[in-house]
Amino acid sequence: MSSNKLQIIKTMQPKEKPDVNQVKFGSVFTDHMFKMNYTIDKGWHDAKIIPYQPITLDPAAMIFHYGQTVFEGLKAYRTNDDQILLFRPEQNMRRLNSSSERLSIPQIDEEEVLYYLQQLISIEKDWVPKDPGTSLYIRPFIIATENSLNVNPSCSYTFMIILSPVAAYYPEGINPVRIYVEEQFTRAVKGGTGMAKTAGNYSAAYNAQSAASTLGYSQVLWLDGLEKKYIEEVGSMNVFFKINGEIITPELNGSILEGITRKSLIQLLNSWNVPVVERKITIQEIVEAYEKGLLEEAFGTGTAAVISPIGELIWNDLSIKINQGETGETAKRLYDTLTKIQTGKISDPFGWTQQVRELDETIPSH
Amino acid sequence: MSSNKLQIIKTMQPKEKPDVNQVKFGSVFTDHMFKMNYTIDKGWHDAKIIPYQPITLDPAAMIFHYGQTVFEGLKAYRTNDDQILLFRPEQNMRRLNSSSERLSIPQIDEEEVLYYLQQLISIEKDWVPKDPGTSLYIRPFIIATENSLNVNPSCSYTFMIILSPVAAYYPEGINPVRIYVEEQFTRAVKGGTGMAKTAGNYSAAYNAQSAASTLGYSQVLWLDGLEKKYIEEVGSMNVFFKINGEIITPELNGSILEGITRKSLIQLLNSWNVPVVERKITIQEIVEAYEKGLLEEAFGTGTAAVISPIGELIWNDLSIKINQGETGETAKRLYDTLTKIQTGKISDPFGWTQQVRELDETIPSH
Ligand SMILES: Cc1ncc(COP(=O)(O)O)c(C=O)c1O
Ligand SMILES: Cc1ncc(COP(=O)(O)O)c(C=O)c1O
Repeated sequence: MSSNKLQIIKTMQPKEKPDVNQVKFGSVFTDHMFKMNYTIDKGWHDAKIIPYQPITLDPAAMIFHYGQTVFEGLKAYRTNDDQILLFRPEQNMRRLNSSSERLSIPQIDEEEVLYYLQQLISIEKDWVPKDPGTSLYIRPFIIATENSLNVNPSCSYTFMIILSPVAAYYPEGINPVRIYVEEQFTRAVKGGTGMAKTAGNYSAAYNAQSAASTLGYSQVLWLDGLEKKYIEEVGSMNVFFKINGEIITPELNGSILEGITRKSLIQLLNSWNVPVVERKITIQEIVEAYEKGLLEEAFGTGTAAVISPIGELIWNDLSIKINQGETGETAKRLYDTLTKIQTGKISDPFGWTQQVRELDETIPSH
Repeated sequence: MSSNKLQIIKTMQPKEKPDVNQVKFGSVFTDHMFKMNYTIDKGWHDAKIIPYQPITLDPAAMIFHYGQTVFEGLKAYRTNDDQILLFRPEQNMRRLNSSSERLSIPQIDEEEVLYYLQQLISIEKDWVPKDPGTSLYIRPFIIATENSLNVNPSCSYTFMIILSPVAAYYPEGINPVRIYVEEQFTRAVKGGTGMAKTAGNYSAAYNAQSAASTLGYSQVLWLDGLEKKYIEEVGSMNVFFKINGEIITPELNGSILEGITRKSLIQLLNSWNVPVVERKITIQEIVEAYEKGLLEEAFGTGTAAVISPIGELIWNDLSIKINQGETGETAKRLYDTLTKIQTGKISDPFGWTQQVRELDETIPSH
């Protein structure tokens, strides 16, 4: 633990905290941010918490040209007795490193960065909102900063963490959405970057998403890039189905992102002795289950919404209505349980939550 | 033409020009750059040529998170009589717009931007190097600048052009390279972003490239992402083969970038009545042609190298030696002809080159 390496510079002009229920997702940021740099000589160094501020880069910085970057997304929650909890943050650090491996970005020390994150949240604890369903969204990211147009891995990087207070995803409770099965565009393919959380994957999906919204759907259901046959993800969430009492979710195949919500829900279901299987799932199979009346539920899972029930799937001309367009009981139970664990309302038998300690005041601060 | 919209601010501290043969590709930049901004209200506006300088962005700027960005690469050449020529720049502007369409980025006015580019090169004409094979590399690019973590297209963008004097790609004449046929990683797939010049495609290729260099190869030959059967590109170049007197190159299939060098070479070959065919090519077919002694040449094509002959292809355990590891006669003839057209050494029957006019001094400059 290299606590002594962390420099802290506090802002002299704290911002006014907004009404979190009035702000758009990810558009307001807290007073401070974390930053450290990497060079080949020094490795990761110069870790500091500083006032939230712009970054200055040369126009030739590699991030602008070759997309060498990875990110994470997790949340801090405020409990009823004003503790701050992080949900499985060590999983995000691990996934950040695995994304970095795919993008030829140097590894971080997961424990060390987790410590820095704890310190940052501790400084910003007043920014973690109180209202039910609200949270502080945490965005760690790494960008390539070498100034060169040569197409090869950067020799320098900047790692940052920024924080944004966010409203409840579902102000009126969770609500099933209509989803369009995408056949033209591809999100990811084996051997590509689909299993990494890297910038290029997300803008690559905009065309499909906006075509779907134009047609009145919330999101797209992604099929595999090879045969357009197997179900992969929904929007930028993992996806689960309940067919004839069994929960199934696409197996990790190299093009699906391994969601931490997905992983946690599987563990929850196992602990309840509800059958859950990770395997390949064809869209055809979903249609057949629907036609036989066996398709009971479908839902997306991810940090932002936790659970997003699917009320209707549209595949070509076929409309597949699921559970009369209502949230299913499994989705509801999973949502309630997971959000209660995340916010400390029920006990946490898995040890998933991590309490944010008070700022370590032994650190020299400036 | 909106020449009157261009503001020009010249530097007071011109840099010392380096010996271009001593600098690494894309690491030195000229005195000025072009910049303009986009907002939904104003469209593209505030076009200006200003001293080369860093850009300042919020850490939440979308470019850092979701990779919404496109770029181009082209060159300006100095002729023996000190004219400056651009090679088919209108093709790059068109491709920029087609990449932007894939990335949900607003279109530019191609003619207007070409005018701005002409003005910029005109101001920087002393930076276009003289030595044989040298040129001024031109990098136009667009980045998403909205400060928001919401996963959707940005409402604001910055377009920039930066310029870098570059050495001859082959200081000792063109030299065949050894290429590794990549089977694990995938560059692009139909429905993805392979046909767009966008950042994420390039860093996604680093793992494969570095594995190949570790084994002693220059680059990888990319197969299609679906069946790992059809040849797509080599490194970040298009690829051509000569089999039994016929030139073949993979047809544009939605995952291959449409190279301007590729297009120009096809036109040249047609003008010479050399048979050239765009079609699917399997790696198996190349092996068979090799075994029958019919594989005569192979080469990559792109702006950076123009032609990069392939002396050897390694596929699994098979080494495919091509033309005894020597540059083939078609590659040589294409290289000589195209580079002579680009540098004004022979006439330009296709009207590919565009002379850079003197700076339009009617423009108010500051
Ligand atoms: C592409 C993609 N799939 C799935 C997920 C769900 O992952 P998690 O549950 O860790 O939020 C995310 C991120 O939120 C994602 O970006
Ligand atoms: C992926 C890729 N393929 C092919 C090419 C060749 O295109 P051009 O001939 O226009 O330089 C490039 C760019 O140079 C490229 O980035």
